[in-house]
Amino acid sequence: MNIGRVIGTVVATRKDERLIGCKLMLTQPVNVNEETVGEPLVAVDTVGAGIGELIIYTKGTAARHAAEKLQSPIDAAIIGIVDNIDLYRDLTNKK
Amino acid sequence: MNIGRVIGTVVATRKDERLIGCKLMLTQPVNVNEETVGEPLVAVDTVGAGIGELIIYTKGTAARHAAEKLQSPIDAAIIGIVDNIDLYRDLTNKK
Amino acid sequence: MNIGRVIGTVVATRKDERLIGCKLMLTQPVNVNEETVGEPLVAVDTVGAGIGELIIYTKGTAARHAAEKLQSPIDAAIIGIVDNIDLYRDLTNKK
Amino acid sequence: MNIGRVIGTVVATRKDERLIGCKLMLTQPVNVNEETVGEPLVAVDTVGAGIGELIIYTKGTAARHAAEKLQSPIDAAIIGIVDNIDLYRDLTNKK
Amino acid sequence: MNIGRVIGTVVATRKDERLIGCKLMLTQPVNVNEETVGEPLVAVDTVGAGIGELIIYTKGTAARHAAEKLQSPIDAAIIGIVDNIDLYRDLTNKK
Repeated sequence: MNIGRVIGTVVATRKDERLIGCKLMLTQPVNVNEETVGEPLVAVDTVGAGIGELIIYTKGTAARHAAEKLQSPIDAAIIGIVDNIDLYRDLTNKK
Repeated sequence: MNIGRVIGTVVATRKDERLIGCKLMLTQPVNVNEETVGEPLVAVDTVGAGIGELIIYTKGTAARHAAEKLQSPIDAAIIGIVDNIDLYRDLTNKK
Repeated sequence: MNIGRVIGTVVATRKDERLIGCKLMLTQPVNVNEETVGEPLVAVDTVGAGIGELIIYTKGTAARHAAEKLQSPIDAAIIGIVDNIDLYRDLTNKK
Repeated sequence: MNIGRVIGTVVATRKDERLIGCKLMLTQPVNVNEETVGEPLVAVDTVGAGIGELIIYTKGTAARHAAEKLQSPIDAAIIGIVDNIDLYRDLTNKK
Repeated sequence: MNIGRVIGTVVATRKDERLIGCKLMLTQPVNVNEETVGEPLVAVDTVGAGIGELIIYTKGTAARHAAEKLQSPIDAAIIGIVDNIDLYRDLTNKK
């Protein structure tokens, strides 16, 4: 899983019918300092994530398990809201 | 899922027979500013996407679900047409 | 799926027995201008691709479907010969 | 699989219920010199890994096998504690 | 699949029990000139690969098929020893 921030939503009227009712959240991957890493992806929300929240997302078949839609075209899903990151900073650059 | 733009089509007469009838769309990944990111991929259209349209695509097993061809060699599919991206720009670089 | 060019073959006498009879093609990913992108991979040919041909390849479980060897260690396969790429160049850098 | 170092934990009260009881370890990928490579991911611990330990992690469906939670949204898991890396340094840059 | 060189082994006493008996080979991805590309991964040997040998490895579910351990946490496996790479060099930079 990876950490990201919800930075928006994507509206698509014409879409796979198995996505109807799914909230498509624009999710920006971030690092442990909550800084932007790479480009945003579109993840289905499964935990009631709000705009601006720090979240955990999963990819691939795991995302369909998260959404409980195994036969769907979903390949990314938000599965948790981050309360806190306990980071041992002296380890992050340890040789 | 990711956001892309349909920039062309790929014609292949000699191909896996399970691809017959599939439209192979050249799909350019784009960022939230609709700028080019990385190299185009070939995705099967499942929603009637047109050249130039901004779309959502999915990858892996999810793409075979999208195409409803589970036993096929498809690993990327277009699953929605983007109407709008609601982006909270002040969040995109938030520390 | 992605576009590549067949640039060689790989010979391996000692290998997983489920690869016996599979042609292992050295496949160079290319962009829409047919320029080299990243490093070559080894893909199983399923369509009679020849050296130098522009092809479509697939990855992951999709490759085992292509080869019709679901229980094999194959994770990449050539699934089509590209006849033509219809590219709308004015879209490739569109904002 | 890849080698990483456990550099922290992630606390998430609101999450997929199938993650309850799973320890979410912030895992920094490292190279053979134990130097940082890329950004940390969130992996479920399945072997009792401690903060600062060098570990082996796996991704995708393999991670759900590791956690013995096949129907869960897990896509990364720690599956071993590294005792030693036997590296033949003269091979690392061999042409 | 990709080409790599076995550059060492990883010793892990505390590990997922389904890895017991598996040889964990430190595998350096290489290009067609046998030069280092990116960082090493940990792959399970299934063909009796030796230190220093040029090999073919596979990833994901394909690796569990290779190891014939479908329910295991394996996500990378060595599946062949490269005897020869027949490379058509004039094609590698062809436009």
